[in-house]
Amino acid sequence: MEIVGGVARFQGDVFPQQQELFRALAREGQRPSTLMVSCADSRVVPELITQSEPGDLFVCRNAGNIVPPFAQKNGGVSSTVEYAVMVLGVSHIIVCGHSDCGAMKAFFNQEALESLPNVKAWLSHAEPAYEVVRTCYHEHEEKDQIHALTLENVAIQLVHLQNHPSVAAALAAGKVSLHGWFFDIESGRILALNAEGDFVDFEPGQELPVAVPARKPRVGAAVSKAA
Amino acid sequence: MEIVGGVARFQGDVFPQQQELFRALAREGQRPSTLMVSCADSRVVPELITQSEPGDLFVCRNAGNIVPPFAQKNGGVSSTVEYAVMVLGVSHIIVCGHSDCGAMKAFFNQEALESLPNVKAWLSHAEPAYEVVRTCYHEHEEKDQIHALTLENVAIQLVHLQNHPSVAAALAAGKVSLHGWFFDIESGRILALNAEGDFVDFEPGQELPVAVPARKPRVGAAVSKAA
Amino acid sequence: MEIVGGVARFQGDVFPQQQELFRALAREGQRPSTLMVSCADSRVVPELITQSEPGDLFVCRNAGNIVPPFAQKNGGVSSTVEYAVMVLGVSHIIVCGHSDCGAMKAFFNQEALESLPNVKAWLSHAEPAYEVVRTCYHEHEEKDQIHALTLENVAIQLVHLQNHPSVAAALAAGKVSLHGWFFDIESGRILALNAEGDFVDFEPGQELPVAVPARKPRVGAAVSKAA
Amino acid sequence: MEIVGGVARFQGDVFPQQQELFRALAREGQRPSTLMVSCADSRVVPELITQSEPGDLFVCRNAGNIVPPFAQKNGGVSSTVEYAVMVLGVSHIIVCGHSDCGAMKAFFNQEALESLPNVKAWLSHAEPAYEVVRTCYHEHEEKDQIHALTLENVAIQLVHLQNHPSVAAALAAGKVSLHGWFFDIESGRILALNAEGDFVDFEPGQELPVAVPARKPRVGAAVSKAA
Amino acid sequence: MEIVGGVARFQGDVFPQQQELFRALAREGQRPSTLMVSCADSRVVPELITQSEPGDLFVCRNAGNIVPPFAQKNGGVSSTVEYAVMVLGVSHIIVCGHSDCGAMKAFFNQEALESLPNVKAWLSHAEPAYEVVRTCYHEHEEKDQIHALTLENVAIQLVHLQNHPSVAAALAAGKVSLHGWFFDIESGRILALNAEGDFVDFEPGQELPVAVPARKPRVGAAVSKAA
Amino acid sequence: MEIVGGVARFQGDVFPQQQELFRALAREGQRPSTLMVSCADSRVVPELITQSEPGDLFVCRNAGNIVPPFAQKNGGVSSTVEYAVMVLGVSHIIVCGHSDCGAMKAFFNQEALESLPNVKAWLSHAEPAYEVVRTCYHEHEEKDQIHALTLENVAIQLVHLQNHPSVAAALAAGKVSLHGWFFDIESGRILALNAEGDFVDFEPGQELPVAVPARKPRVGAAVSKAA
Ligand SMILES: [Zn+2]
Ligand SMILES: [Zn+2]
Ligand SMILES: [Zn+2]
Ligand SMILES: [Zn+2]
Ligand SMILES: [Zn+2]
Ligand SMILES: [Zn+2]
Repeated sequence: MEIVGGVARFQGDVFPQQQELFRALAREGQRPSTLMVSCADSRVVPELITQSEPGDLFVCRNAGNIVPPFAQKNGGVSSTVEYAVMVLGVSHIIVCGHSDCGAMKAFFNQEALESLPNVKAWLSHAEPAYEVVRTCYHEHEEKDQIHALTLENVAIQLVHLQNHPSVAAALAAGKVSLHGWFFDIESGRILALNAEGDFVDFEPGQELPVAVPARKPRVGAAVSKAA
Repeated sequence: MEIVGGVARFQGDVFPQQQELFRALAREGQRPSTLMVSCADSRVVPELITQSEPGDLFVCRNAGNIVPPFAQKNGGVSSTVEYAVMVLGVSHIIVCGHSDCGAMKAFFNQEALESLPNVKAWLSHAEPAYEVVRTCYHEHEEKDQIHALTLENVAIQLVHLQNHPSVAAALAAGKVSLHGWFFDIESGRILALNAEGDFVDFEPGQELPVAVPARKPRVGAAVSKAA
Repeated sequence: MEIVGGVARFQGDVFPQQQELFRALAREGQRPSTLMVSCADSRVVPELITQSEPGDLFVCRNAGNIVPPFAQKNGGVSSTVEYAVMVLGVSHIIVCGHSDCGAMKAFFNQEALESLPNVKAWLSHAEPAYEVVRTCYHEHEEKDQIHALTLENVAIQLVHLQNHPSVAAALAAGKVSLHGWFFDIESGRILALNAEGDFVDFEPGQELPVAVPARKPRVGAAVSKAA
Repeated sequence: MEIVGGVARFQGDVFPQQQELFRALAREGQRPSTLMVSCADSRVVPELITQSEPGDLFVCRNAGNIVPPFAQKNGGVSSTVEYAVMVLGVSHIIVCGHSDCGAMKAFFNQEALESLPNVKAWLSHAEPAYEVVRTCYHEHEEKDQIHALTLENVAIQLVHLQNHPSVAAALAAGKVSLHGWFFDIESGRILALNAEGDFVDFEPGQELPVAVPARKPRVGAAVSKAA
Repeated sequence: MEIVGGVARFQGDVFPQQQELFRALAREGQRPSTLMVSCADSRVVPELITQSEPGDLFVCRNAGNIVPPFAQKNGGVSSTVEYAVMVLGVSHIIVCGHSDCGAMKAFFNQEALESLPNVKAWLSHAEPAYEVVRTCYHEHEEKDQIHALTLENVAIQLVHLQNHPSVAAALAAGKVSLHGWFFDIESGRILALNAEGDFVDFEPGQELPVAVPARKPRVGAAVSKAA
Repeated sequence: MEIVGGVARFQGDVFPQQQELFRALAREGQRPSTLMVSCADSRVVPELITQSEPGDLFVCRNAGNIVPPFAQKNGGVSSTVEYAVMVLGVSHIIVCGHSDCGAMKAFFNQEALESLPNVKAWLSHAEPAYEVVRTCYHEHEEKDQIHALTLENVAIQLVHLQNHPSVAAALAAGKVSLHGWFFDIESGRILALNAEGDFVDFEPGQELPVAVPARKPRVGAAVSKAA
């Protein structure tokens, strides 16, 4: 197991250099500003593509970077989101998809999916995205359909996030904003979803596109109107 | 959002140096040998403590490094495990707990848990560990109880893994082994669960302790006996 | 049972006058253009407030005009939505809340809710709305909070609708639009949610505010960009 | 959207005439004596066929006029039933099926059902009725089988109602009775299920057939016997 | 473990005498005419109180002799019922409660129930019986209330049985009948529920009271009427 | 119904002889030392093969002698296990499979299984065993595969038992041990699983093989190490 050597290198070479950071993190606890939900894919390392240090990034990873809607109180993603928003008070939630995603490709290979019953059930949370592709892009090549599915999947997970009570309240209170990213493994490019619904290049010098910014309170107006 | 700067550094400085690796990974797909299930905690970076490169480590992260038992086909962890074993054919599954874990501490602060209904429900998958601590270690200090809970929690998740059909079959066929780790943030130490049920120091020069090695086929004998 | 007399009046007086309509509807089937999801409340009669004839309005009614998110394939609302969009091809979906709603008031009387376990569980689908009110409007009077909850509840049900695969696809294809209404029993006024997130008076002479209009295809752009 | 005109007519012509009724209903709340569970079908308007005024009829509508058995505390029908019995104290619960019902016909067109996964799952609550038809009436024409299914479906929903705790208790206390109706769109006829298990014509001049009348207390006798 | 001695006695003394029976049962398979659902209680041995031989009685036992309604396809009781009716074609299903039942007594000791979360959840399938007792017999002594609950519980499980598709069809086809029994540990007396809803003494010389006899086909009449 | 005669024999001949035992059991309650989980099969009578008296054996029976993992708090087996361990304090839990088991054979006859949807869903709790057989023994004859499946099924249910909180705690506290048995109908032989994972003949004169003995406390060591 090669990982044994990696652990040895970490303990012998790397940890001693970061000892102060780890001690402070152990003493003071974590205060990450961002939750990233990304795929389990070994090629998509959240801390690498954001150049984050230990303590910076709260991370939830699963096959397909899925966020189930808040409907049953028993899921790992839902509880990770809840902990991030309610306990840690993160300011940003990023859902990050990526190119060549095995989970997204599975939709186009139903036979393979039959032997993966858990994956199939889990991907039901991407079905809205799949239906969009099937309806609007069925004439494209499969490669483009899979790309479209990957983007639509990120977008629908942002819809799901908005029905989590902790996120709904934090959005309404102006405390959190939601981001939809796409990482291209081959080129290192990152696309970000903007408020108009387009995935655009994430230009380092410019402002970050935000998919769902904190909203203005709807209810205030309504309350006065009701008077 | 500081992460914007991090992405810029990744794209400007880091990616160009790893371009060959990423291109190869995009072209040939991923072939990780190991699935690591770890906590969402920002201080526990799987790729850092194992010094893994992109492509090495398939990663599932959630609050409390939980693996629900295989009982309902709709979970993110179950589908990530299934994908890792059935599609990627990983040889090792590591469940990695850690010190100062917010999820583990939540059991000892029931009031706080009331305002975190998702987390509370999710941690029902750690209840067997909690019952062990409550029964056997209720006379210890809370600090020690939390440490015990963290270790027992890793152990029970390994029990859960064994009832996933893909894992059960891979264990019986001698293709996968299961590992239980504990990462101490302050000291960088890693403990590993051995087959006798003890968490022992992971000594770089020595062989890795294995919690659940591939088992010898039980059925062969039985089949002949039944004749 | 007074209803016996009502049925007699229907059969004796009313039906004979509408016989042609009913015969045509029996012969040709229904082709309603609109699905309305409203409360079970006896004072909110969908066909009355929209002056609809038999055949005009497909109607789903339950306590609190709830649309659970698409997450488990076993609900009455989800299947009614699916049938409306996939089989009947409705062009509009209206979620209609109302004043003095017993379901909405239940959130503010937790004791009463304890003796109504089904209602309590069902209203978990309104929890995001409740959390918004608790976070942003806890300083208002209860009366205003309940009004705010009623409006937020309509809005969150529209979020839920967007993750139903049939609705997501119909929205993307420009075939359906979503409406959020509020009916005031005392005054007969109707408010409608507009795309800016405000509930505004529904002025007969003017155009109907639309909460979620059919969207422009996100993916087309993305597909070309990916080339 | 034609409905805009309907709302204008309601607000301009209809509401002013019923203003007193609506004001009283807003002031004093609703006190309906009856809960009707009927299909979402646009041709089956509960208030029309019972000639009910606003305030008379608490209404639950879904595809197939289904009442799931009380088994999971999270459904819209169950919570509507609970609210009607526990809070409003209704004296009658009517389950009303109808001719040409799309939900009932779906059982005989399994292919169409495959593209309607929610409807398919929802109709599992009509499976007992379907099994009765498949077992006892498979030699009839499909048209008659569908008619039989529609009647059996009403009957099984009355079985389901009896396992809702609020209904079971109200039945035992002699406070509620259950009715099973069938509305024929073409003729306007209504059939009602009697205590012998037959669907009979609902003759205006005669007493209403009752499917499940309030029962005499079973337990009293038993308690004395046990002494 | 005393059971070791018991097994030795079975193998040494008992089996040799029944060897022919067991061989025939192994060769020809089982053909039991009756399914009995009874409590796990060690004092209620179904084969003893019915003096059944191996091969006579298909038996399902769980805490509280519960039969959940058919609503989710994943339960042990539902599948045992289904197997009994569909594969074995049993003619009788008996639900047998008993005196001094720990499960029934648990309802009256809510504190104890808090430490038994599984039992508490499982007994939700007895809630309709509990609500009947709470509504109609709250003025009786606890002892009598528990007795009443035990009888009502048997009755409600017979309601549940009727919504299992296999049972509904077999009842309609006249192939199965349902029985509700109560076994008194102290006296050996057995009460049986009759079609009028009373639990009566099971007099050996007389005919067995039947709770739910096979019903006459409802649909035949309806089908002809519909013509 | 032959059972009527059996009950008469029980009441007339058998009960009078055991009256003292039953009276004592009614007065003092039950104190069984063992929970047996076995199949509903009419040929496998737990009290017979262990020669147990009323009061000795707490019994849970279902199709396939399944123990679902502890994951949802609503099952009959889970609650029976919980009651046995928490309330009765049993010292032994036996899972007993058997030859010619209809549930086990169903896996090899998928068509038959399609008409048994509940059984199919219930047997998902035996899927890990099935996957082991499919992976390791697909070259054996079907008869041997079914035998292997039966044994593996017993073993996986013992894995499931270990994640029930009450069992996990009792194992850790040295209060309970787990047994896996196989009963051969034709020969009366019983095999028992030992700690090495082999099913061996249960030799009356020798010590009983134990599948999962009470374990030594893992945590004690860990707690001291953590100091
Ligand atoms: Zn991926
Ligand atoms: Zn943690
Ligand atoms: Zn309402
Ligand atoms: Zn219909
Ligand atoms: Zn009992
Ligand atoms: Zn069996």
